[in-house]
Amino acid sequence: MENRTELDQLGEFGLIRRISTNAPPTRTNTVRGIGDDAAVLETGQNEYTLLSTELLLEGIHFDLSYTPLKHLGYKIVTVGVSDILAMNGIPQHLTVSLGLSNRFSVEAIDELYAGIRAACAEYEIDLVGGDTTPARAGLALGVTVVGSVEKDRVAYRNGAQPNDILCLSGDVGGAYLGLQLLEREKQVFLENPDMQPQLAEHEYVVQRQLRPDARLDVVQQLRELGVMPTAMIDVSDGLASDLLHLCAESKVGAKVFEEQLPIHDKTFLAATELSISPITAALNGGEDYELLFTIRQQDYQTLLDGTTDISFIGYLTAEPGQAALVTKAGEQVDIIAQGWEIRA
Amino acid sequence: MENRTELDQLGEFGLIRRISTNAPPTRTNTVRGIGDDAAVLETGQNEYTLLSTELLLEGIHFDLSYTPLKHLGYKIVTVGVSDILAMNGIPQHLTVSLGLSNRFSVEAIDELYAGIRAACAEYEIDLVGGDTTPARAGLALGVTVVGSVEKDRVAYRNGAQPNDILCLSGDVGGAYLGLQLLEREKQVFLENPDMQPQLAEHEYVVQRQLRPDARLDVVQQLRELGVMPTAMIDVSDGLASDLLHLCAESKVGAKVFEEQLPIHDKTFLAATELSISPITAALNGGEDYELLFTIRQQDYQTLLDGTTDISFIGYLTAEPGQAALVTKAGEQVDIIAQGWEIRA
Repeated sequence: MENRTELDQLGEFGLIRRISTNAPPTRTNTVRGIGDDAAVLETGQNEYTLLSTELLLEGIHFDLSYTPLKHLGYKIVTVGVSDILAMNGIPQHLTVSLGLSNRFSVEAIDELYAGIRAACAEYEIDLVGGDTTPARAGLALGVTVVGSVEKDRVAYRNGAQPNDILCLSGDVGGAYLGLQLLEREKQVFLENPDMQPQLAEHEYVVQRQLRPDARLDVVQQLRELGVMPTAMIDVSDGLASDLLHLCAESKVGAKVFEEQLPIHDKTFLAATELSISPITAALNGGEDYELLFTIRQQDYQTLLDGTTDISFIGYLTAEPGQAALVTKAGEQVDIIAQGWEIRA
Repeated sequence: MENRTELDQLGEFGLIRRISTNAPPTRTNTVRGIGDDAAVLETGQNEYTLLSTELLLEGIHFDLSYTPLKHLGYKIVTVGVSDILAMNGIPQHLTVSLGLSNRFSVEAIDELYAGIRAACAEYEIDLVGGDTTPARAGLALGVTVVGSVEKDRVAYRNGAQPNDILCLSGDVGGAYLGLQLLEREKQVFLENPDMQPQLAEHEYVVQRQLRPDARLDVVQQLRELGVMPTAMIDVSDGLASDLLHLCAESKVGAKVFEEQLPIHDKTFLAATELSISPITAALNGGEDYELLFTIRQQDYQTLLDGTTDISFIGYLTAEPGQAALVTKAGEQVDIIAQGWEIRA
């Protein structure tokens, strides 16, 4: 009899491990294959080529009942670009593949591409190819971004050392709360189509969800300041989950200080309205597309003086896999991938 | 009132033109963007990086009721690799993104990757990344292939000149007839599940459909023989359609000799059984993943002596857009993208 193992028994990361274990690289110019934010390829004398790909599906990654196509176009580029930035690289080229049901008009696709082009202009990248195909239902979007990085500036997930300082760009938790508000308004609308959406004061978090920006500015600043991050990842799954990836790959632990977590005033406001803990949103929200990275202690002052939008949220320890949040009350709380538990 | 233009008014190629017209490249290292088989990027001293991406959707590009997942895995790599070869390049790296409904088990994904790995071994490329995501229904596959080519060996679609010789690798029409046979057996099975498939003598064409090979060997041979194709495209949409693309891009016409069209004995057999003209299958079938390319006349003897699987099917003329089939009876028949018409 045939064995059948359900996909959810493995989970996404289990599936990726299973795939990558069975596909070891053989080409000498494959510097890093599956397992980081982007693949690292040797193509030139002084630089590596970075390659990252994403597949985004209607009904899973986006809901067109409240997502303008122009924003969606911008967001899919952000998602792809963010993976290249997370290697400390500069994004350069983009391909977009579309699977389209006949529900979509040419004007709808024009809107999508208006967003894609706006993002290309913002990130200074070129749209260089793609594929268009009919789909039986819905919208499927394949996004591939190619970038480059000087060989001595590539930042993997596994380079962090104990005592390195944990840095986070921008603020977190907003995109998740924006999504919750949009879902709430959708339900209200479905129950009573005459109701108007109540989102005016929540523009910030809604924007964080619908049209997030990738942090090209941070990668450029690090370059200008001459600071080399020891490890880097982008915050797409949520700060807790992505921190745990970085710790696991670097075989270190982490302490994060609650009072240092960057949470926007508007995120607090939305959290209060939705009765969600802002700390939970910040740790587990996801889709913020901020950069989480580590630096050596001697680079701290340079970064403190030279940047305005970086928070120093904690430091790394020599205890692999042990990540803890130090609360304002001084308690230590284990950070786990989904939610968090009091340790003792 | 909002305008609504249906996608089928534009067609796939119209949509691609619309997208590319509005997205001119701005980076100096974008050598060629949208519009050829792959994007051409400047990344090193002596070589270009080639980038190509495909999106393949269940129910549109493949039918899992008769496609073994292992064959599908192999085929999606072939499809991606073929685009790199069509630039006269060498494929090197692959990413595969999966959108999966919970209908698929881990064992099913293992089968798919067994095919992907077999193709990676065959083409000597590395699987270096991807993305896995749940899907509401069906299987979505995003395939990106990166390759390289020496700057003086890149073959675009637009380099052909009048009097160049038109060359075609392997044979054509088989993949299309294989698909027709598989569809026929599926209908028989749906009407009477006790019937056994009648495909034993059609293994060749069925294999051409389910597990096609990309012609890495041809690109390698051209290199070894020192022959530089003046233009090149892969036969994915059908010989007629792809020839017309090459002619349009190169601003030339073509004459193709019916008696030179490479059609396999098993393709004739299947065509007879299905009452389909083998010439129609050869011209309009698609999915053969052979290479159609042009050479200067002085390279003809070298290729004739040095290769075994190349047919010289015709030559180019100075009449842009005029492509004709010269029949065995000496008649000239216009070649059009779908089907063909007697000219006078």
